[in-house]
Amino acid sequence: MKENRTYQINPNAKVHFHNNVDFCVGTGRMGLALQQEYQEQLKFVQEEIGFKHIRGHGLFSDDMAIYREYKDAKGNVKVEYNFTYLDFIMDSYKKQNLRPFLELGFMPAKLASGEQTIFYWKGNTTPPKSYEAWCDLVTATLVHLMERYGVDEVVQWPIEVWNEPNLPGFWKDADMEEYFKLFQTTFKEIKALDKRFRVGGPAVCGVRDEFWIREFLNFCRRENLKPDFITRHHYTTELPEKQGHYGYAELSDAQAGFDNLQTSRDIIDSFEEYKGLEIHITEFNTSYIPNCPLHDTNQNAAYLAQQLSMLGDVNESYSYWTFGDIFEEQGVPFTPFHGGFGLVANGCIPKPTFWTFKFYKDLSGECVHKEEDSVVLRTKSGGYKGIAWNAVRERMGRELALSFELPVTNEQEYVLLTKTVDEETCNPLKLWHDLGEPASLSEEQRKLLRDYSRPMIASRRLRAEANKVTLDLNVKEHGVVYFELQPVCQKSDRGYDYERVMQFKS
Amino acid sequence: MKENRTYQINPNAKVHFHNNVDFCVGTGRMGLALQQEYQEQLKFVQEEIGFKHIRGHGLFSDDMAIYREYKDAKGNVKVEYNFTYLDFIMDSYKKQNLRPFLELGFMPAKLASGEQTIFYWKGNTTPPKSYEAWCDLVTATLVHLMERYGVDEVVQWPIEVWNEPNLPGFWKDADMEEYFKLFQTTFKEIKALDKRFRVGGPAVCGVRDEFWIREFLNFCRRENLKPDFITRHHYTTELPEKQGHYGYAELSDAQAGFDNLQTSRDIIDSFEEYKGLEIHITEFNTSYIPNCPLHDTNQNAAYLAQQLSMLGDVNESYSYWTFGDIFEEQGVPFTPFHGGFGLVANGCIPKPTFWTFKFYKDLSGECVHKEEDSVVLRTKSGGYKGIAWNAVRERMGRELALSFELPVTNEQEYVLLTKTVDEETCNPLKLWHDLGEPASLSEEQRKLLRDYSRPMIASRRLRAEANKVTLDLNVKEHGVVYFELQPVCQKSDRGYDYERVMQFKS
Amino acid sequence: MKENRTYQINPNAKVHFHNNVDFCVGTGRMGLALQQEYQEQLKFVQEEIGFKHIRGHGLFSDDMAIYREYKDAKGNVKVEYNFTYLDFIMDSYKKQNLRPFLELGFMPAKLASGEQTIFYWKGNTTPPKSYEAWCDLVTATLVHLMERYGVDEVVQWPIEVWNEPNLPGFWKDADMEEYFKLFQTTFKEIKALDKRFRVGGPAVCGVRDEFWIREFLNFCRRENLKPDFITRHHYTTELPEKQGHYGYAELSDAQAGFDNLQTSRDIIDSFEEYKGLEIHITEFNTSYIPNCPLHDTNQNAAYLAQQLSMLGDVNESYSYWTFGDIFEEQGVPFTPFHGGFGLVANGCIPKPTFWTFKFYKDLSGECVHKEEDSVVLRTKSGGYKGIAWNAVRERMGRELALSFELPVTNEQEYVLLTKTVDEETCNPLKLWHDLGEPASLSEEQRKLLRDYSRPMIASRRLRAEANKVTLDLNVKEHGVVYFELQPVCQKSDRGYDYERVMQFKS
Amino acid sequence: MKENRTYQINPNAKVHFHNNVDFCVGTGRMGLALQQEYQEQLKFVQEEIGFKHIRGHGLFSDDMAIYREYKDAKGNVKVEYNFTYLDFIMDSYKKQNLRPFLELGFMPAKLASGEQTIFYWKGNTTPPKSYEAWCDLVTATLVHLMERYGVDEVVQWPIEVWNEPNLPGFWKDADMEEYFKLFQTTFKEIKALDKRFRVGGPAVCGVRDEFWIREFLNFCRRENLKPDFITRHHYTTELPEKQGHYGYAELSDAQAGFDNLQTSRDIIDSFEEYKGLEIHITEFNTSYIPNCPLHDTNQNAAYLAQQLSMLGDVNESYSYWTFGDIFEEQGVPFTPFHGGFGLVANGCIPKPTFWTFKFYKDLSGECVHKEEDSVVLRTKSGGYKGIAWNAVRERMGRELALSFELPVTNEQEYVLLTKTVDEETCNPLKLWHDLGEPASLSEEQRKLLRDYSRPMIASRRLRAEANKVTLDLNVKEHGVVYFELQPVCQKSDRGYDYERVMQFKS
Repeated sequence: MKENRTYQINPNAKVHFHNNVDFCVGTGRMGLALQQEYQEQLKFVQEEIGFKHIRGHGLFSDDMAIYREYKDAKGNVKVEYNFTYLDFIMDSYKKQNLRPFLELGFMPAKLASGEQTIFYWKGNTTPPKSYEAWCDLVTATLVHLMERYGVDEVVQWPIEVWNEPNLPGFWKDADMEEYFKLFQTTFKEIKALDKRFRVGGPAVCGVRDEFWIREFLNFCRRENLKPDFITRHHYTTELPEKQGHYGYAELSDAQAGFDNLQTSRDIIDSFEEYKGLEIHITEFNTSYIPNCPLHDTNQNAAYLAQQLSMLGDVNESYSYWTFGDIFEEQGVPFTPFHGGFGLVANGCIPKPTFWTFKFYKDLSGECVHKEEDSVVLRTKSGGYKGIAWNAVRERMGRELALSFELPVTNEQEYVLLTKTVDEETCNPLKLWHDLGEPASLSEEQRKLLRDYSRPMIASRRLRAEANKVTLDLNVKEHGVVYFELQPVCQKSDRGYDYERVMQFKS
Repeated sequence: MKENRTYQINPNAKVHFHNNVDFCVGTGRMGLALQQEYQEQLKFVQEEIGFKHIRGHGLFSDDMAIYREYKDAKGNVKVEYNFTYLDFIMDSYKKQNLRPFLELGFMPAKLASGEQTIFYWKGNTTPPKSYEAWCDLVTATLVHLMERYGVDEVVQWPIEVWNEPNLPGFWKDADMEEYFKLFQTTFKEIKALDKRFRVGGPAVCGVRDEFWIREFLNFCRRENLKPDFITRHHYTTELPEKQGHYGYAELSDAQAGFDNLQTSRDIIDSFEEYKGLEIHITEFNTSYIPNCPLHDTNQNAAYLAQQLSMLGDVNESYSYWTFGDIFEEQGVPFTPFHGGFGLVANGCIPKPTFWTFKFYKDLSGECVHKEEDSVVLRTKSGGYKGIAWNAVRERMGRELALSFELPVTNEQEYVLLTKTVDEETCNPLKLWHDLGEPASLSEEQRKLLRDYSRPMIASRRLRAEANKVTLDLNVKEHGVVYFELQPVCQKSDRGYDYERVMQFKS
Repeated sequence: MKENRTYQINPNAKVHFHNNVDFCVGTGRMGLALQQEYQEQLKFVQEEIGFKHIRGHGLFSDDMAIYREYKDAKGNVKVEYNFTYLDFIMDSYKKQNLRPFLELGFMPAKLASGEQTIFYWKGNTTPPKSYEAWCDLVTATLVHLMERYGVDEVVQWPIEVWNEPNLPGFWKDADMEEYFKLFQTTFKEIKALDKRFRVGGPAVCGVRDEFWIREFLNFCRRENLKPDFITRHHYTTELPEKQGHYGYAELSDAQAGFDNLQTSRDIIDSFEEYKGLEIHITEFNTSYIPNCPLHDTNQNAAYLAQQLSMLGDVNESYSYWTFGDIFEEQGVPFTPFHGGFGLVANGCIPKPTFWTFKFYKDLSGECVHKEEDSVVLRTKSGGYKGIAWNAVRERMGRELALSFELPVTNEQEYVLLTKTVDEETCNPLKLWHDLGEPASLSEEQRKLLRDYSRPMIASRRLRAEANKVTLDLNVKEHGVVYFELQPVCQKSDRGYDYERVMQFKS
Repeated sequence: MKENRTYQINPNAKVHFHNNVDFCVGTGRMGLALQQEYQEQLKFVQEEIGFKHIRGHGLFSDDMAIYREYKDAKGNVKVEYNFTYLDFIMDSYKKQNLRPFLELGFMPAKLASGEQTIFYWKGNTTPPKSYEAWCDLVTATLVHLMERYGVDEVVQWPIEVWNEPNLPGFWKDADMEEYFKLFQTTFKEIKALDKRFRVGGPAVCGVRDEFWIREFLNFCRRENLKPDFITRHHYTTELPEKQGHYGYAELSDAQAGFDNLQTSRDIIDSFEEYKGLEIHITEFNTSYIPNCPLHDTNQNAAYLAQQLSMLGDVNESYSYWTFGDIFEEQGVPFTPFHGGFGLVANGCIPKPTFWTFKFYKDLSGECVHKEEDSVVLRTKSGGYKGIAWNAVRERMGRELALSFELPVTNEQEYVLLTKTVDEETCNPLKLWHDLGEPASLSEEQRKLLRDYSRPMIASRRLRAEANKVTLDLNVKEHGVVYFELQPVCQKSDRGYDYERVMQFKS
């Protein structure tokens, strides 16, 4: 089934497109950043895409070993801080050209008021047994970071208080009042240290999120707090169905998600004091479980392509959850393609969605077109860059035949470059399946998968006619195509005759 | 135009196929090995293909600075040797896991009897003014190498005396008698040093080569010399037509070339003493000029695919001339795609022919099929590997539809991997042309070309029926396809359902 | 205080010196091998020293996630195995050119019969709740490794059953009978899989070790078991005194330790069936706690120099505990110089003891001298290599002035190379102290420490007199000096006059 | 012989010290930048020292292959330009974080008016046969560079017209009038292209240099030219005495050299129009021949230490001739220590002088002391940095005992770091000599030399008394010592007792 669509581009259209794709990316818990495979995946992601910030859970969890208690000679319990692993990790981020987007949590077991934990790695999700001790911990950590990396540097790291307190798994009883207390105490502590720090919350996800945001702002107004930004999460699948190690989830309607984001915006803007306050989506993905095979598919890549065109509309930033597949929330995965959140599978194999991010990163220019299947920008050099995708929630065998009529200023030749990621050209999941779904990849298989997981590149010469270049693109179902149209001025070397080399008849 | 061909493979056929593709590769003159770009190209070639030996001209040319004369206190001319650059180069080859195939030549200017030179870099091609001094030079060089790299190592480096003495440009007047003198003197000198050295000649090319080989062996018989091998060259284009910086040449009939090789074999075998003596083709390529755009094309890759299936038939080895495009015989090239001999273009961009070599390197198993368009081997694991190509001398729009019926021993599933290099999938020359044939590549263009110059990988599941797997391959004109068929035993992880992930209807 | 000692070397003395320094090295628990800093330290160690095997605890501990239980549809508990992390780690060892010396332990929590754990990282030290399930785990793991790395490879990996069962912390109640059951069951399981596997025990340490070894062999004899080797540990300090994060321990008399090793040898040899059975010291160091500042000192390096000269006397191998300081048994260290076991401190800074190992690794030749302060070997090239040290248990200000009279065969010049590690030349602990004992090293400090932590190199020309070269070495207290004496044949280049360059008066 | 000197430092002294050590460094001819060993040496130099510009000869020499002539169809000679190698080289400089300091020269053979050449590599040193063609060449080259690297970038590259035209070897007949013509023509051509270019001359060296500078400015004034800077060279040895491959030269009096530099300054300042015009010393070293063993010595390092303290006094910059030993002016060197100009010997072995540059690069702060043997700067952190040296023209066995009394503001502890390069601690020439002066280094010897060629690092704790720290330094003859004094605030970890670890009696 082929569907034809033609777009006549107005080069002077000023289409709203806030492309902040590289602002932040998610990560498995902090402590995993000690791992080599984690760092190799991150290195690959940074070289190809290059995010600016990174955000994950578990800064204060026990594997980080920051908060330590001991007994002094008199038997009194004393606190000391250990920043050995924190330094390892922050040094590594610096080397990878990343700044943290700090999430304060979870609770060190010794500082916790209860024993409730979340995840395979048992993050404690109860309030502190002492808010004073909590504040000491926060301050000691920030002071240490400022000493090590410079005050002017560290105050640029955004800080978010806790994660998803509206869910009882992440915050005991989803106790709103207690969270507000945590926020207020922490906020004041940090601002007292250096008021340049930017602190926000409430990092809500899904359940009753609108209510929480509204109440949060009511609370702030009441207490005369000025949070620097609001944070929330954004997932776009229905409830997953569990089967063995996996969960199968269906994509939800994209528009419903965008509407939900708009509601957050509207709530905030309804407060005079907080009108226009930045919203950071500190997590987003399709499914919210780390064992959803959807994440590894081309379908995910195409669906995300639309998301990335829209997420900046009412939000300052949006952080994909997560860059890689070193992630232990549901335990250690059994296979390389286990439906992890990562842009990159274990073995440093880019998934199709990786390329969607790469393509958005490579965009530049003025947006002149944004529709449900494509975005086009006009470049300084007199050409165009854009992305087209074919996103469907259920496979239906639809091929999109897109035609863009692109005005140009002079009668010359153009070169069209396309990079195509679809189920034929760049589909590591299929190759892995064809190989028998091996749990342990041989070095040869790993290399094969890596070599295969790259966009197909193609080029075409196009000639302007009547000050217009017509660009025809076929986008297969679940496909994403990046394209660049550049004017080309051919200067053949003395004696070089391409037509003759190629034996083209003239 | 589509042409169908079906091959029924006999798994027990013992087809003669001496695949020695990685024995040796050619290089621009020794002194160029000092260059960084040269070494980077070589590193890439060695990582992907991995040749065992390397052979080039100019070991004794002046830029190597080995042979030095000076005057002593009494004003007498004395000789000294400088091995500084030689060490740099041999160290680099060792690091690249290569042994030299030493070619003794050309003449140091101070040791030469005349002023005739060849090439932009002016290699002196006249006999020595003193054979004694020449022998001293050869011995001093070999002794130095033996001291540095070990005697047992260096005696394994084959030695060839001079290059193409049958051409007057390479050896003054193509003086056969003088060459025989050079050979005999050098041969004896080396064998006296260590008789384990393997020494051969006469490295002839093209003109009257049969006559030269016959006379060479007559001479050897007369003088009771036992050369360790015979060397010759093999080029397969007609005379090029010059236009500006370039020469355009047409491919010659492949069979004529193979017949010529057979003639060399027959001549040698006609001597009782030399029957079965190894022949090393110490240079081969399509065109013999370093500015023939043909070298950069897919056509070259397909034509070479057939060559590589046959060159071992009557020869021990065959050395492609050359691995890379750092090469100065006709001067410094003006553009990256200037028709150089290299498997790799400047900027470390693999050309289509590079992949033909890579594919042959990856073959293993017992040959069960060899025809003008394909070669197939049976592997130990119960599968097959092979290469198919579509080589034509003139573009005619022919697509080959090959069908291989491959017997297998059990009823199971197989995965077919294909790697395709053709004018659509891996054609850097076209991309470069589409970009406007830039003489200076930007870093971005270089990366784009490198990313594009890779085979397209695909996989398919095939099921055996009646103990047979039928493998259908379409090979586009000038295309080369590598394939592997492996039995696959699928073990899905608990709960993993690929069909469901992909939304395939069952 | 200077002490003079003269040694007249007999070049034909055949002194027993089994230098097996590179056979094996210890590591923090397996799971830590996932970490990047761990791998960087290991890479450094392997490049400079190059061990052959690596041994550590925790193969089956929960962080490795190998043993997994789940409930099937009917609610029955089933077992499955996850080798994802095991593959990461074994791949990394292979890349580092290491084979594991497998230690089977500790117990997965779900498979354990009790809740007793050891260390900060909580290794379960109770017997299996089911020996059948334990055997399944062992077999599944070995079979997986054989599939991945090849049967012929994996059977070369020595296997040790459990660690220090004679200590109640490591094995519940130090229950000897239970350990013997574990050993026998495991031994038979592995031999049934492939009898080429080499399996040993009982890995005892310190307390009642002689009794354990004797009883172990009695048991084996009774049960007709033929263990492939005996393992034990070897530490040489008195009980440490605890103070804050640290333990201070005094070195014990070296001879007492060697006597203890001899006793093990004697016990084994007293069994007819086991006479000459290999003993592997699978752990040794001075102190047995990972927070003993002694490990970071030059004193440790000098003391170990003597150990390394003797440990091969009655043992097949001896594995230093451990290569690096990524190690969590007592928690995460607060500073880089915290007295960890490692040859290398965090930040990849070699400690003095690192160089003792490097020096032993660089020895080669026939041993002609071995005393309490030095070892000397005669080399093939007609020179000597050796190590001298100045080991004292308490600082006393003793400088050793050693004089070696070394017979040589011809009257020529020699060059003496020395590499000196002592408290002045290579003492990172002092530099770190002088810098204020920083817990967090800046990149600059790290580099400074690394640059400083290298032996001081010096050279001297010595002339043979009366067929003898006299080599005088001053070894400062706690110093270790490596030396090489090589014949030198000077060939100055034409016109080069070193005396003149240096303005030496002749 | 020990000589004591005490310096009482005034922390508020504002001593003139224009430390521009990293502005520029010299290189062998451009074409050598294609070489791998060259690039490795440059990488090492850039990582450790980090120069900003690089200057060498031979931009237009034939091996660069820029200027090419050919005949068109009608037989007319035409010119074309080949920028292939130029791009390779400029790309490499960019990657090494270097900008060229362009020297325009020498003459392409085809563009030359005569056949006079200089050096082993035969740089043509005659005026152009056509000034128009010369100008085309200059413009084409600059335009190409501007297209490739950006206009705003390239106009920042200083341009010098020719090299040492006052010497007849470098400019035919040292024809002053002809040089002025070349300068004027070239200057105008470049300024017409972009007036932001900074263009200077006359790059004189030694002979009649003062006369040339004066006449050059007279000419410029007459012709109303405003050169952007004046360039000259600075060498400080007497005439070398030739012996075999080497030249032995004695150091000249340093003050005479500084006086000569002052004279240049005075001459320029005597012109009202050119008063204060920047002087760039575009070459300096001790000896001006590339085979002077002095360059490899510690004596050179110490002598240069004084030079670097003074060369900024009346000059804007001073470019050491050269960074490395890939250099062919007198042919290819026979040994690694052949007295080349380089900071680094072949094999990437730093010479003592390398460290003098490194030390100056590491200085920062306000200069408070500058004498013939030392320079001291006050740092922001309340400490000091400095360099001391012991430079003598003839070996006399003098050791300097320097004592610096350094005022500090508070009573605390300080750490003194010293890095010492002298004939004992860092003297690769001696080690190489002791090894027998091998022409070919084995990999092991190369590593040994590299490991040895590093400063000896030491640290000391010093305590302030009466607001003063007294720093005592012994500097051996030909020694150079870098030192840093930093306040140190010791924070020992809980329980850590350094005195106890070290068994120091308290």
